[in-house]
Amino acid sequence: MEAPDFSKGLVPAIAQDWQTGEILMLAYMNEAAWQETLATRRACYFSRSRGLWHKGEESGHFQEVHDILIDCDRDTIVLRVRQHGGAACHTGYRSCFFRRLGTEDWEITQERVFDPAQVYTKPHP
Amino acid sequence: MEAPDFSKGLVPAIAQDWQTGEILMLAYMNEAAWQETLATRRACYFSRSRGLWHKGEESGHFQEVHDILIDCDRDTIVLRVRQHGGAACHTGYRSCFFRRLGTEDWEITQERVFDPAQVYTKPHP
Repeated sequence: MEAPDFSKGLVPAIAQDWQTGEILMLAYMNEAAWQETLATRRACYFSRSRGLWHKGEESGHFQEVHDILIDCDRDTIVLRVRQHGGAACHTGYRSCFFRRLGTEDWEITQERVFDPAQVYTKPHP
Repeated sequence: MEAPDFSKGLVPAIAQDWQTGEILMLAYMNEAAWQETLATRRACYFSRSRGLWHKGEESGHFQEVHDILIDCDRDTIVLRVRQHGGAACHTGYRSCFFRRLGTEDWEITQERVFDPAQVYTKPHP
């Protein structure tokens, strides 16, 4: 099986709700995050501030991976996931994309699922 | 209205079918591509090989923008689009994400909508 192309650096990975198609977040993977995701079937990302990032490790809001898609150039990944804990975003919204451009400004389109202060005891990097 | 944060470079933009939620492609924007997308309501991206890239200019497969979402960090964009011409991918598939990881290898999950040789008369960069 051909792996994603990590030769140009980190690869974006889009997490999408496997049932509704809602886009939950975008994060990045290096090869170690990719291998960890394959092995555990839970989304693992990589960020320069966090390093290897087992999504939901602190919050419990992990992502169970149902399907993995790859694009034509093999440099973007889609994870079709079941989002545990109700929310993907550290701000407490279900999706990181909780703002839509209205006629004059960004408008918030969702209700908060949780209060970040109750979930994260350590400061968010 | 706060623009996306281009201070760290190009910003990924995910094109999603506005009706089905299918993820069609991921490309990048600089500030000029963002402004052009806002002004024309058609997806315009930026790539190092193409420069400012008016998606569908050659193929006719342009993307009419219905909604624009932005993430918590303002460094990723979702365009909810109507894909004209039936296909977003230059390989002729509706979505660039036409491969899913099966038990042993990537499996093609879609039928080709068009034959690239009939649509592109210039070589694809």
